[in-house]
Amino acid sequence: MAAAGSLEPLGPEVLRTAVSLDAVESLAEQVLPSDVRDFVAGGSGAEATLSANRAALDRISVVPNVLRDVSGCTAATTLLGDSVSMPVAVAPAAYQRLVHPEGELAAARAAKAHGVPFTVSTLSSYPVEAVAATGAAVWFQLYWLRDRRKSFELVKRAEDAGCTALMLTVDVPWMGRRPRDVRNGFALPPGVEAAHLRSGTPSRSHDASSGGSAVAAHTASVFEPSLTWADVEDLRARTRLPLILKGILAPEDAARAVDCGADAVVVSNHGGRQLDGAIPSVDALEDVSVAVAGRCRVLLDSGIRSGIDVLRALALGADGVLVGRPVLWGLAAAGEAGAGHVLGILAAELRDALGLSGCDGVAAARRIRTVRSTTWTDR
Amino acid sequence: MAAAGSLEPLGPEVLRTAVSLDAVESLAEQVLPSDVRDFVAGGSGAEATLSANRAALDRISVVPNVLRDVSGCTAATTLLGDSVSMPVAVAPAAYQRLVHPEGELAAARAAKAHGVPFTVSTLSSYPVEAVAATGAAVWFQLYWLRDRRKSFELVKRAEDAGCTALMLTVDVPWMGRRPRDVRNGFALPPGVEAAHLRSGTPSRSHDASSGGSAVAAHTASVFEPSLTWADVEDLRARTRLPLILKGILAPEDAARAVDCGADAVVVSNHGGRQLDGAIPSVDALEDVSVAVAGRCRVLLDSGIRSGIDVLRALALGADGVLVGRPVLWGLAAAGEAGAGHVLGILAAELRDALGLSGCDGVAAARRIRTVRSTTWTDR
Amino acid sequence: MAAAGSLEPLGPEVLRTAVSLDAVESLAEQVLPSDVRDFVAGGSGAEATLSANRAALDRISVVPNVLRDVSGCTAATTLLGDSVSMPVAVAPAAYQRLVHPEGELAAARAAKAHGVPFTVSTLSSYPVEAVAATGAAVWFQLYWLRDRRKSFELVKRAEDAGCTALMLTVDVPWMGRRPRDVRNGFALPPGVEAAHLRSGTPSRSHDASSGGSAVAAHTASVFEPSLTWADVEDLRARTRLPLILKGILAPEDAARAVDCGADAVVVSNHGGRQLDGAIPSVDALEDVSVAVAGRCRVLLDSGIRSGIDVLRALALGADGVLVGRPVLWGLAAAGEAGAGHVLGILAAELRDALGLSGCDGVAAARRIRTVRSTTWTDR
Amino acid sequence: MAAAGSLEPLGPEVLRTAVSLDAVESLAEQVLPSDVRDFVAGGSGAEATLSANRAALDRISVVPNVLRDVSGCTAATTLLGDSVSMPVAVAPAAYQRLVHPEGELAAARAAKAHGVPFTVSTLSSYPVEAVAATGAAVWFQLYWLRDRRKSFELVKRAEDAGCTALMLTVDVPWMGRRPRDVRNGFALPPGVEAAHLRSGTPSRSHDASSGGSAVAAHTASVFEPSLTWADVEDLRARTRLPLILKGILAPEDAARAVDCGADAVVVSNHGGRQLDGAIPSVDALEDVSVAVAGRCRVLLDSGIRSGIDVLRALALGADGVLVGRPVLWGLAAAGEAGAGHVLGILAAELRDALGLSGCDGVAAARRIRTVRSTTWTDR
Repeated sequence: MAAAGSLEPLGPEVLRTAVSLDAVESLAEQVLPSDVRDFVAGGSGAEATLSANRAALDRISVVPNVLRDVSGCTAATTLLGDSVSMPVAVAPAAYQRLVHPEGELAAARAAKAHGVPFTVSTLSSYPVEAVAATGAAVWFQLYWLRDRRKSFELVKRAEDAGCTALMLTVDVPWMGRRPRDVRNGFALPPGVEAAHLRSGTPSRSHDASSGGSAVAAHTASVFEPSLTWADVEDLRARTRLPLILKGILAPEDAARAVDCGADAVVVSNHGGRQLDGAIPSVDALEDVSVAVAGRCRVLLDSGIRSGIDVLRALALGADGVLVGRPVLWGLAAAGEAGAGHVLGILAAELRDALGLSGCDGVAAARRIRTVRSTTWTDR
Repeated sequence: MAAAGSLEPLGPEVLRTAVSLDAVESLAEQVLPSDVRDFVAGGSGAEATLSANRAALDRISVVPNVLRDVSGCTAATTLLGDSVSMPVAVAPAAYQRLVHPEGELAAARAAKAHGVPFTVSTLSSYPVEAVAATGAAVWFQLYWLRDRRKSFELVKRAEDAGCTALMLTVDVPWMGRRPRDVRNGFALPPGVEAAHLRSGTPSRSHDASSGGSAVAAHTASVFEPSLTWADVEDLRARTRLPLILKGILAPEDAARAVDCGADAVVVSNHGGRQLDGAIPSVDALEDVSVAVAGRCRVLLDSGIRSGIDVLRALALGADGVLVGRPVLWGLAAAGEAGAGHVLGILAAELRDALGLSGCDGVAAARRIRTVRSTTWTDR
Repeated sequence: MAAAGSLEPLGPEVLRTAVSLDAVESLAEQVLPSDVRDFVAGGSGAEATLSANRAALDRISVVPNVLRDVSGCTAATTLLGDSVSMPVAVAPAAYQRLVHPEGELAAARAAKAHGVPFTVSTLSSYPVEAVAATGAAVWFQLYWLRDRRKSFELVKRAEDAGCTALMLTVDVPWMGRRPRDVRNGFALPPGVEAAHLRSGTPSRSHDASSGGSAVAAHTASVFEPSLTWADVEDLRARTRLPLILKGILAPEDAARAVDCGADAVVVSNHGGRQLDGAIPSVDALEDVSVAVAGRCRVLLDSGIRSGIDVLRALALGADGVLVGRPVLWGLAAAGEAGAGHVLGILAAELRDALGLSGCDGVAAARRIRTVRSTTWTDR
Repeated sequence: MAAAGSLEPLGPEVLRTAVSLDAVESLAEQVLPSDVRDFVAGGSGAEATLSANRAALDRISVVPNVLRDVSGCTAATTLLGDSVSMPVAVAPAAYQRLVHPEGELAAARAAKAHGVPFTVSTLSSYPVEAVAATGAAVWFQLYWLRDRRKSFELVKRAEDAGCTALMLTVDVPWMGRRPRDVRNGFALPPGVEAAHLRSGTPSRSHDASSGGSAVAAHTASVFEPSLTWADVEDLRARTRLPLILKGILAPEDAARAVDCGADAVVVSNHGGRQLDGAIPSVDALEDVSVAVAGRCRVLLDSGIRSGIDVLRALALGADGVLVGRPVLWGLAAAGEAGAGHVLGILAAELRDALGLSGCDGVAAARRIRTVRSTTWTDR
């Protein structure tokens, strides 16, 4: 495994022919050491949910309208108070220095340039203050720590740094078993660490025979598995930031999130990285939308790879989506330019998807009809 | 990329063993430069709709009848006033000189020989007057131009040339992103241009970094994205030609087309070239048929590749179909003879499909029952 | 293409390891010239129905019962008056000398040895009298000829030869287009001809450019495409043999067959050789069974390849099945021994299927419950 | 074929990177002679049910809950009176010396170490007394023998040896045809025999031409095909051990099992080794659960390969599962350590599956909601 410093991103000129997010993934694969590539790409268990996320999105067909005036078509909207160029935010992703030396800083600058929020992970390899200093709209993702006091300190730091929303991850009592990482004996290379955590971060010395990776062992030691709705209520009372609960799939949980004062839920199976066998996020979306009935915002993640995916999500009731791995691919390939390229493709594709389905904006997109095909389509 | 003049069609003798449209496609692939092949074959986005069009047709099974007298079986019928040998018209396709030096002229002659209408595109590489001079029944396809006056001039030219129907394309506020063309830096070769448009046509000098192909950029500069139903009513008032709206998938839009005085709608997703993720055309057909309730004709395109596909469309409520790419394959392979070969195969297959399902003609075919199989069938 | 005399069947010892019908198919493929192999294996059009027949059978799951006494389990029953060892008959197949010099004679001897009826085709390469002389229970398959008098002469010959049932094929107003045969320029080799037809049989001199094979052209010249239900009534009045109508898929046609006095219908799409795109036979079976409501027998063909397939058919309402290609595979591989091997495997598999689902015989099998899985299972 | 003594298990160090049961299967394939590998892996017929078992499990998605306190999450429960670390028992499997010299003894020791019951087969290669002496919780699997007296003697031996449950297999009036074994001429190598049966066990001298393997012929000679519910009632009256009926798929049979006094049923298609074409076990589970309505325990086998599979079964109404082939893979790879490794993976995966779906234990898991996806997911 190479140290973070040994990454050699491609020049921005290679981006020209990368006309889809999948193409950017191919570029990233040329750059990343195989264990980091696996850490980014992998899912838990047999990766059934990982692949089902895509299959479920692929079988959603849109019934477009025509002869609407779409000359002024725009994806601009607001997300939790932030004005955004499109209903997309960069998902929290740990340790972004793994894929590029400038890590979260470069990705946040790209997000700023494209008018979308950037979410800083608790496991960020740069501190939230440095990321916020880029001027991007920054959301802070919180893993609830066994050290309760430290959790609240992180919230305070996020507030002080000017974050505009707080995103509590609720689907990680502990990290799911990810066979690729275990097989690779994956651990963080020198120079990459969790900037917000004082305790040591995962290192090579971890004994893989315990059945998990070093990263999994570290999170098990610091994350709180006894987290409940009562803690959410407590957190709600301690911050004025908009509160987002990430990792909700069951409609009854979404309704409860509303009752606890959440401003948004993220319908997510953690990109297929937690419960393998969990329902594809997009298949859980409609029931959640119905359950919350407009009382909070609904975001979606897990498998978004194109503008049409964003349209699918909007049509099924989402207010917006999070995009994770594709931004890492762009970051790996060409740093800020690469991450920006990814967001630029998404923006272009989303405008296309809106206009070609007769929508002049996000509100119209939420009224578009969809059908689920049982037809298997090769991909 | 080769200039149009460098194409070397195969001799007609190669057609003998090309017993299906797919086989003609293989011949075309031997002749065409790769970027032209991609321009013809490609779809937008991930080409999900492109492949779903076929998958959706494949899973429609017909329940044939037997012991009807089919000795006089014929596919002859009328389409929008034209007597036709079968309920098929050649779909509009741009720049046919890309695939054969005689382009639209050869294809129209083949259509005439086989008794089906030929649709001239606004982006035709030969002018409508020259195509009409072949003596074929000619329909004129209109892209509504930003220059409104010019749009109406084109209608006038079509009327004067003796076109028997006017087909307004309604699903192209702008061209969908087609990754193959962007990757190939596709532009028209010397000698191929839009015969009806005075403004310059797409050339090599286009800067692909804008994210679209030269062809896409050109259409963006001349097509009107603010087109609405009011414009359709205006157009309806200005011509006595039968008016066909091409590119309708939503039943409410089909009903509105009837209200605007359309004589026909074409249920179409533009062969998977506009909104990737759009519903397969054939899956939208029944709802549209029900919505128009016989008040206008219903045509289908997007994926028709055999006589049984025509029967499927008729059985699900279509009055006829448009066939696009296969005619281009024939044209590429062997000019007029090749295009004619394609239409000849379709005619033979359709007669087979009618007779073997106990139908003596098109009217009977529209009463045939179908089932949708959830069985996946390899192709 | 080799003449019939040049076939070199394998010795019976190779059968030992051929433990399934698919394995026998592999043996046949070693023996047969490629054009004959294609003539046997091929279907019409894109062969969609050919493959859908198997897929449809594969997704039918049986819900077996247990703890019934199956020590006396037997598949013996009667079919149209004939006592049979299992509810299986050999389907009519043309020109069996194509696959083995002893053709229909060898296959009939195998059928006799295994206690099942053998169906002689109108296009048999040995005359019905010679086949009946083997002592097998013989059914005669009739293609209604343009020469009506000759049709009735064939019926008379069948009666005189001692056939025990008459099977009228109703799904061939003309032969479906089979691309493999057209591509191969398939025609009968010297020494193989239709023993019952005085007019010349298909030869090499046929001009393939007409778009069909020589065999298709021949059948077009002799088969009657104007056949209707009135002719069936006429036929019914002229013979006392049990009358079977083969090639019915629509329930209304099955009900009409009963009204015309048919003793049985064969739910069949001609093994995917007539209307490509037709419903898989087994998917049409239940509706036909309900429509005839026990007023005539219901047989099934098209895709039966194992004993479990027979059980599936029985459970869905069939009284029995026809098996075609597999017998030809056995015949090609090792003559009478090979055909017998195929029937022996079927018998063993069917007894297994009955006993392991708790059925002591055919009557119990018809009460077994099935479910259709939407699960795709690789094969 | 190698004798049992020639097996060379891998050292326990190879287990480290085998992080899933599928990976252990790969190890086993390196160790086992091909005919033994086929005997373990194979199914009956075309192995349609074998593969459908997996496909059916794969398409069951779980809707997890979040923000439950899972810090004390445990899979511990009771199965038929035995306290177990997880709701899993080792399935009966014949002749385990085929895969490792210590056979059932090693597997039972692994089961003991992991706190799950081990089921001894009637066809065990070590006697029940020796297996019970390992100290494991041992269940005894009974094949009802033609020699009725001997069947009851086996029950008596099981009771005397301290077995804690009796499992009567009800889906084997005779062994299903398994093509792999027939093709391989499979027979037991020297040194492997059925320790409980005095009559000779299958040997090389068996004549494979009879169409079955030597093992099949042996079982046909000793198993009773006339077994009925009356015999079950008789057995019930003769033993105080909890009685489990293994091999039930039809709900009416499950209800009858309750009426006969069964304490549990195993919903099973014998791992795809008996009726090919039988419904996937997991697709039969819900109807059986409803039919027994809590009046007896419901176990599931056939295709369980991970902790998420166990969760799927619990969520659909099972009280527990049996695991067969995976334990044999572990045993083959590394004896007791390998079998234990398999059980350890299952335990870790199940704890993960419970905790990540918000369940603190088995009772909560039985309330988890599932959906069946029609999405095809590649595996």
